[in-house]
Amino acid sequence: MNIERIEAAAARLAGHAVRTPLLNAPLLDAEAGRRIFVKAECLQKTGSFKYRGGRASISALTDAQRARGVIAYSSGNHAQGIACAAREMGTPAVIVMPADAPAVKIANTRALGAEVVTYDRANEDRHEVALPIAESRGLTLIAPFDNKEVIAGQGTVGLEIAEQAGAAGVERADVLVCCGGGGLTSGIALALAARAPGLRVRPVEPEGFDDVTRSLAAGSVQANDRLSGSICDAILTPHPGDLTFPILKAHCGPGIAVSDADALRAMVLAFRRLRIVLEPGGAVALAAALWHRADDADVIVVASGGNVDAPLFRQALEGE
Amino acid sequence: MNIERIEAAAARLAGHAVRTPLLNAPLLDAEAGRRIFVKAECLQKTGSFKYRGGRASISALTDAQRARGVIAYSSGNHAQGIACAAREMGTPAVIVMPADAPAVKIANTRALGAEVVTYDRANEDRHEVALPIAESRGLTLIAPFDNKEVIAGQGTVGLEIAEQAGAAGVERADVLVCCGGGGLTSGIALALAARAPGLRVRPVEPEGFDDVTRSLAAGSVQANDRLSGSICDAILTPHPGDLTFPILKAHCGPGIAVSDADALRAMVLAFRRLRIVLEPGGAVALAAALWHRADDADVIVVASGGNVDAPLFRQALEGE
Repeated sequence: MNIERIEAAAARLAGHAVRTPLLNAPLLDAEAGRRIFVKAECLQKTGSFKYRGGRASISALTDAQRARGVIAYSSGNHAQGIACAAREMGTPAVIVMPADAPAVKIANTRALGAEVVTYDRANEDRHEVALPIAESRGLTLIAPFDNKEVIAGQGTVGLEIAEQAGAAGVERADVLVCCGGGGLTSGIALALAARAPGLRVRPVEPEGFDDVTRSLAAGSVQANDRLSGSICDAILTPHPGDLTFPILKAHCGPGIAVSDADALRAMVLAFRRLRIVLEPGGAVALAAALWHRADDADVIVVASGGNVDAPLFRQALEGE
Repeated sequence: MNIERIEAAAARLAGHAVRTPLLNAPLLDAEAGRRIFVKAECLQKTGSFKYRGGRASISALTDAQRARGVIAYSSGNHAQGIACAAREMGTPAVIVMPADAPAVKIANTRALGAEVVTYDRANEDRHEVALPIAESRGLTLIAPFDNKEVIAGQGTVGLEIAEQAGAAGVERADVLVCCGGGGLTSGIALALAARAPGLRVRPVEPEGFDDVTRSLAAGSVQANDRLSGSICDAILTPHPGDLTFPILKAHCGPGIAVSDADALRAMVLAFRRLRIVLEPGGAVALAAALWHRADDADVIVVASGGNVDAPLFRQALEGE
């Protein structure tokens, strides 16, 4: 993995992916006691950064591979990103999704033209569900994070942050990134190491699912002891990836773990101060910027996704 | 008023106003049966386009005027736009607001450092409340729409639409704009007439408060018979402005009126498909694009604001 691969992905994404804004709100800054800049990837096509990796990986396939089709497993955002990119490029797509994924994510993936196969997150291994289907139909498996072109696609977020932070006069800051398997986090870390070395990435995870935080602290891959039980469904993964962990280890600062309750509170502030819709897993980095800070330095937050069902969003707003 | 004044305002706003994205969502297009491009001004600083006119008008004052201060009357979005721009430029600001404006708008205006004076929207004339305060303190009154620099500032939205629609390959389309007194609508209309003549502006208003629609149909200024009674508080104004109406008459297509219920439904689709937060008055143009269409042509929508109280947003999401 290198910056050239991310630059190449950016060239293939130009005119397709949304260049999402880096938002700032004076009243959010006042409440936080620091300047917070929010890269609003919830505004990306399909509602999360995953479209970038989807388009980057499918556009890197051979014509023959694209004609046969692709398969992916995903709690929902990778699913929609792959489905949307595949439809744009005329590629058949099969998506293996946990049966307990938010209804909006399953419905959207189907509406984007993909074939959805569901599995039981607690008792089945999604890779083992996907593999036989891939083999029997000649589909190319696009892993959600352990894939160089996926990491390169997500890394284009980092190229944009480098430019946008520079334009805003922010030279030194932590960049807090909502982190599951580490595709987005490692891609951004690589891009910033090359283009804005004063910006340091720190992964943010849900409490109880902080495999990356513990792996970074230990210096070796650590696993989560369970795979469900947080509302942050988008970023619950078993352990850091074989490709992503070495990158995270080389470039990232310490991880941060935040509670589900703080993720919900951050969703409310994003609603009120930024007028963006975040899902819990897309709000943990903002929560960390607000309530897990060691100082009042400028901070950049990647708000990674906004695919949340209405009942959960209503619940977050209760009492407001 | 001319395009040069809008270009000059754009130069003064550069580096201060957010260049808001022109969003598109495949699943929204599928539901609408047409391509919809949404200029997300709810992501503007203070949550509405009004910051543009505020910064444009205050930056056009003399140093002596800026030192004495400004006064404005507003249902809330102009208030916040003026308050934020005034604070950035070190200018004292007094804002006259209706007592029944959404609590979030009054609270935010105060938090932005302005002095807030409330009045009774049904029984008092806001201009008559503001004038004696302005005279006694030497404040410059910045009218919410009948002010050339305010119109020029709002017109910068049109300059951006011209560029962004061009980049998306949209040469001919209606541009539906949420319309109160017509500052935003007339500014965009002037900018597009000069920079993208294939894009035609149409004002969108709440049912029962469609003064601009009726004025355009009649060819002369028509007034609303009441000033409250819709949830679209941001765009309830007595009649089109002396400056704005001639511009609207010269450049706009027919107006459209939508119900409060349709504004709420459009807020839900904006939540689900675009992951942006809209207030009812900021959602009427999207409602018109979805449910008041004569054909399946491409359409551009200006989503003008997102300052909505949580209880109303929860209500909009009920049943979802």
